[in-house]
Formats: sequence, C-alpha cells, structure tokens
Amino acid sequence: MSILVLKFGGTSVGSVDLIKSAAQIIKKEYDLGHNIAVVVSAMSGTTNKLIENINLINSENKNAHDDAEYDAIVASGEQITSGLMALALKDLNIDARSWLGWQLPIYTSGNHRHSVISKIEDEKIINGFKNRQVAVVAGFQGVGSDGRITTIGRGGSDNTAVFLASALNAERCDIYTDVNGVYTTDPRMADNVKRLNKISYEEMIEMSSQGAKVLQTSSVESAINHNVKVQVRSTFHPDDMGTVISDEVMNNESKAVSGVAYSKDEAKITVIGLVDQPGIAATIFNALSNKSINVDMIVQNNFIERKETNLTFTVPVTDLDQSVKILDDLKSSINYEKVISENNLSKVSIIGAGMRNQPGIAAKMFDCLSKNNINIEVISTSEIKISVLIDMARTEEAVRSLHQIFELDKL
Amino acid sequence: MSILVLKFGGTSVGSVDLIKSAAQIIKKEYDLGHNIAVVVSAMSGTTNKLIENINLINSENKNAHDDAEYDAIVASGEQITSGLMALALKDLNIDARSWLGWQLPIYTSGNHRHSVISKIEDEKIINGFKNRQVAVVAGFQGVGSDGRITTIGRGGSDNTAVFLASALNAERCDIYTDVNGVYTTDPRMADNVKRLNKISYEEMIEMSSQGAKVLQTSSVESAINHNVKVQVRSTFHPDDMGTVISDEVMNNESKAVSGVAYSKDEAKITVIGLVDQPGIAATIFNALSNKSINVDMIVQNNFIERKETNLTFTVPVTDLDQSVKILDDLKSSINYEKVISENNLSKVSIIGAGMRNQPGIAAKMFDCLSKNNINIEVISTSEIKISVLIDMARTEEAVRSLHQIFELDKL
Repeated sequence: MSILVLKFGGTSVGSVDLIKSAAQIIKKEYDLGHNIAVVVSAMSGTTNKLIENINLINSENKNAHDDAEYDAIVASGEQITSGLMALALKDLNIDARSWLGWQLPIYTSGNHRHSVISKIEDEKIINGFKNRQVAVVAGFQGVGSDGRITTIGRGGSDNTAVFLASALNAERCDIYTDVNGVYTTDPRMADNVKRLNKISYEEMIEMSSQGAKVLQTSSVESAINHNVKVQVRSTFHPDDMGTVISDEVMNNESKAVSGVAYSKDEAKITVIGLVDQPGIAATIFNALSNKSINVDMIVQNNFIERKETNLTFTVPVTDLDQSVKILDDLKSSINYEKVISENNLSKVSIIGAGMRNQPGIAAKMFDCLSKNNINIEVISTSEIKISVLIDMARTEEAVRSLHQIFELDKL
Repeated sequence: MSILVLKFGGTSVGSVDLIKSAAQIIKKEYDLGHNIAVVVSAMSGTTNKLIENINLINSENKNAHDDAEYDAIVASGEQITSGLMALALKDLNIDARSWLGWQLPIYTSGNHRHSVISKIEDEKIINGFKNRQVAVVAGFQGVGSDGRITTIGRGGSDNTAVFLASALNAERCDIYTDVNGVYTTDPRMADNVKRLNKISYEEMIEMSSQGAKVLQTSSVESAINHNVKVQVRSTFHPDDMGTVISDEVMNNESKAVSGVAYSKDEAKITVIGLVDQPGIAATIFNALSNKSINVDMIVQNNFIERKETNLTFTVPVTDLDQSVKILDDLKSSINYEKVISENNLSKVSIIGAGMRNQPGIAAKMFDCLSKNNINIEVISTSEIKISVLIDMARTEEAVRSLHQIFELDKL
C-alpha cells in the first residue's frame, strides 16, 4: 500500500468548515487505498494572535524573552488543528489520531524557535497504518534535547511534511495551499500567466527565494536532500493536480525560461575605492552577517592599474541604514574612499533549467529591458537564473515584458 | 524555605494585563523568600471556544467523538497560559519556566476527559527551587497510561493545585479567583453578607456542593485527603487574606451556623405505593446512576401496616423527564402504584460545624421558614447541614431570613 503525506496550510484549515473540507480531500485519497499521514498548520491567524500576546507580555523587558516558552505557546496552534482534524476524519468514519511532536517523537536540534528536524520516529504511524489509521501530525513542532517543545521557524509545517514523507518513504508529499500551484510569474503582475505543471527542484528554489511565496526555499532544499516528490495543490480545487516539483523535469527542458520572479524593496550599497587586499570582502560580509543582514547580489569591479576596487551588493531596504553604519564603523580597519547607497530598487529574475543548454537567453533579456527603456543597475547570474536590479517603479513593466518575450503566456 | 502553591483561575489570567497583575502577586510572595509553584487555568473563554469548535466538527456523527482528541485540544488553553505566565515572571526578572502535564509528568488514571491525578513527579520543580526558579504548571491536564494528554474535568486546575501542594508539602495552597473568599451566603441573595475568614473542610464541602461556586467539592475533598491548607483569595484584592479552609477551624465553633447555601431548579420525584422489599431502592438508584443522573436528597416514608412505602428523591430539573421514563421502564420489574413529580423547587441549606454541639438549630430553621409562610416539601440533614426543599419562587426570601435569624450579618 503506497503512502501519501498530505500537508494543509493555515488558510486550508482556517475554520471548522475548512477543516471538514480538507477531511473530504483526505478521505478521497484514503478511499483510493493509500495510507495517509496528514501534516497540519495552525488555523490561519492563530499563530499571529499567540505571538501578539507574547509580545504584549514582554514589551517592557527585552532581556526576559524566552524562546523555549515562545515555542510551548505557539506550538499549541498546531496541537489544536491536529486534534480537530482527527475528529473531522472520525466524523467521516475514518480511523485517525493526532500526533504531537513529543509523542512520535519528532526530534530537533539547534536553538528554540529556529530548530531543525533531525529525526522523525515513524514506528507509531506505521503501526497505525496496519489498522488503516490516518496519522494527523502537528506541523512546525518537535521536541528538543532538553525535552521541551521546539518549533522549526515560520513555514515550518512544509518542512515537517517533507521530512515525514522522506521518513515514511512516501510516494508523494502533497502541499495543499490557497493557490493551485506555481505560476510563470505573480498573477498580479502580468496577463496570461500560466500554471506550471512541472518544475525542477532547482527552478523551484530560485522561484521561492525570488519571491514566489508558495513554498519556502528551505522546504524545497529539504525535498532535494530527501528526494521527496512534492506536489503543490489547491485545497479549494482538489481535483487540479497542481504543480509537481521533482528532479524528473530535468529531462524535459524544451523551454529555456520557466518563470519570472521579482522582489521589491531592495537597496544597493557600493563601497568605492576599496584597496584590494585579500580578506577585505570577507571582513565586510562577516560584519554584516554577524548582525543577521542577508546580503543578496554581490558584484565587484576591479581596476587593476589602480589596485583599487568597487564592491557593490544588495540588502533588504529595512537593513540599509544598519548596513551603512557597519561600513562606517569598519572604515578604521579597512581602506576605502566612500560608501554610496540607493534604495527603491527591485530585483527581477528569469529562471529556467533549460537556459543551461540554450545560448542567448541573457542577451534576449537585456535587449527586452533596453527596448522598454528600463535601466539595469546590477546583473547577477547563476546556472539557471539571471537577475537584474532595476528601478522599483518599473517592476511590473519589466516582469510583464519578460513574461511575454519568453512566451510564458503560451506554455 | 517554605513552599507555596498559587493557583490562578481563568478570570484571573483572562488577558495579558491580568497575567501581568498575577505575576506581581507571585513576585510579592517570591520576594518574601518563598519557593513558588504556580498553577494556571486557561484564559477565560478559551476552553469554551475550543469546545465550541469540537462540537461544530462532530455535529453530524455523535459516534465519532473522541475524548483523547478532546483532551489534546482543550489542554492547549492551559499550555498557552503557563508559557505566558513564565514570560511575565521573567519580565519581572524572576527565573521561571512552564511545565506541561507530560513534562513533569502529572500521571493520571481513568478515562479521558474525566481523568484523576494519581501522582505528580515533583523532582524537576524541586530542582528548580534550588536555583530559586518559579515553576508554572499548566493546570487541568496530565498524561495517561497511553502516553496521551488527559484532562481532569472542569474546575480541574484547583485539583491540580491541591494535589501539587500535597506533593510538595507546601505550607499553603492559595486559590486566586474573582471573589475574595467564601461568604455566609450568595451576596446577591441577602444584605450584609459577611466574608468568612475561616471555614472547615467539612463546611466548605457542604457549601460547595450546596451551590457556593468558589471551589469545587472534589477540590475540597482532595484538600482533606492530602491535608492541604487552602486559602481562597481575590486576584483583584491580593492584600486581602481571603478565606482559609483547613481543619484548624474545628476548635473554634462558637457559631452554630456558618453559612446559607442554595441551589435552584431542583425537581422532586415520589414513587408512591412501592412494595417494600429489600433491594428495591438499589434497583431504582442504580438505574438512574447508569444514566449519570445525580440523585440528591432521598427521603423514604414507610407505612408498616400496609407493607408499602413512598420513596421521594430530588434530581436536577434537566434530568426530570429522563428520570420519570426510567421509572416507567422499571414498572414491569418492581411494584409501585404511581410516580408523581414536581419541579420549580429550590434546596436551601444551613451549614455549620458548630451545630453538632448546639441543639435546636433545626427547630429554629423550620420556625423561621414557617413564620415566613414558606412551605417545606422535604427535609434532609447531615451532621453539619440541614437542607429543605421549597418553592423556587421563595428562594431569596428563605435565604435572606435564614441569614438574618442565624445572625450571619453580625459575624
């Protein structure tokens, strides 16, 4: 009997009626003969409400924050949904029971609030399968080496599902959410966007980190590491097969570009006249990393005859002021002329596993932007992605024209 | 260092601000040098909201109810409060941590939803005390022999507190609630009601079961069994010492009557012309008990010359119809003439450990009611209590006049 893991996100279990609808989806797979493990998020709004109360408690004394208590509190959201889902399945005469992180257990390592699943004991679930019992696993939570409840970061229920699918050697891990898959680009940004029936792991990672919020990058990475076939599906259109994410797609790279992604509110920092010595870049990026500032695109232009270099990189606009201050503080230890910065920028990327085999994709992209009079500030490329930094006001225009020129509306 | 257990009910932790106020109360005791274990209920309204969702899920298929899932869901309420309270204490620079039932563990026996605490492992709490750490224990919950979360019935957090006070050999168990103690009667029913500074266990049991809702009867019984000194105090007037419940009061029984209690919506059932054979009463009350009908006052009048008897008892009015039906069904197996019933009745009781030593209390009670033209339907007495069944419309009048005649307004 094949095993499926079905994961339902917060908007898919946001009310008692939605939980009942999700139970019907589970029943359909169950009646096909599959053994089913369900992973549930907290009902939408629940986690935020709990965090709000935590923040209200701790407003006065920032030093008194306690991530272990935070975890015990917010994990209650998934605890509630797992119980309600088990009841909803029983109401459909399907044997089911809820499993909390500490009950299986789902072992985690690392710090509270940002724990990482290290092992899932699946013996109890497998025993349930022998009696055709559905396991309803509370997502997002585990138990730490201190015996306390841990959580694995926001969006963590996807990770729970993928890890569980790997542990159970599941045929598929279906991620039910409020969209019916991964699109060629954000439907709000272009006409005639198309849903991708298939996408490779690598493409999905680039799409995720580029702002397609369907599935978090870490979950896709987890799927790669555990070789799990993930399917993103809509709770509201369960007959739609959604988008399959796997490595199988790689054999079918007829199209060079699969999608256009973007992220707004980028800021660009350029360190001018940096004396080019080994270790200078490391000094700068370590200093930023120590303050948890996430540096994205990095471009360096060397002027060999002057033994100087200009270093350009991007950060989220919310980190701009702090980044500039860090560079100011470094001026005594490293040599540079000055720092200039710019905000109101967007990063727009085209992504496609097929561009590895098709030359001229970059030229076509730059040509398209040029014809639209969109100026490119920075270019950054990887094997399956080309990203450009442009004026934020031109984002939609850039996404729309790239979506058209690469014929993503004709998939 | 002496140990205190402080329990905060739902209305005492009903919001973040109230949790912070309760933390201030804890800090005050902590700063006096006590080692403190706190027991918390769910924030008021939380449990009902969870139960509402459970009922919505299960509306269609009553057979699919699952008490283990019910427990896992509703126990989340206390889980949240225990975490928030630990954070509130840390915010006051007091070391604290939350403990869930399965973490200590608090072992329970019996069925889900109605489990009974069998043992509390206090080792982890004691270890915390060595570092002056406050233990914040989630009330109402434990772990069953099946390794799943259990709950111990509504009002169960009081039981958790009393059991924990016994395990820790605590000096006192303070029950913080929204009233500042036990009164001579319901303040809505009479003028000049007085707060009792002390009450004996036995009196408190009678007061509880007679409708003084401050502390559940089972919690008082637990306090007796474990010899725990309980103090009922107001969260909103923490300087008030409230009412002390213990066996010490028994030495100071100057007043015969300590309080007047009442419960409305009683129904009376009389089985007339019952052939008086051994085992008949047992047959009737077993049949009622099997349907979880709680029989209260029982009075039997024998007519020796006729070998017949009339059996009268009271039930909550909500159980009246079912009780009559059960008696109808029994007619084939036991001999009686007919069943008559009456509702719209109240039970009014006077309670006092001192009445053991003072004769004439019953006569004074009946005389008082008679002077007020209040007809007595049934009388039932115990060592420290006299209860009468009267017309429900006369409840307030009866309570007020008894409160006055026994000079409870002059304590």
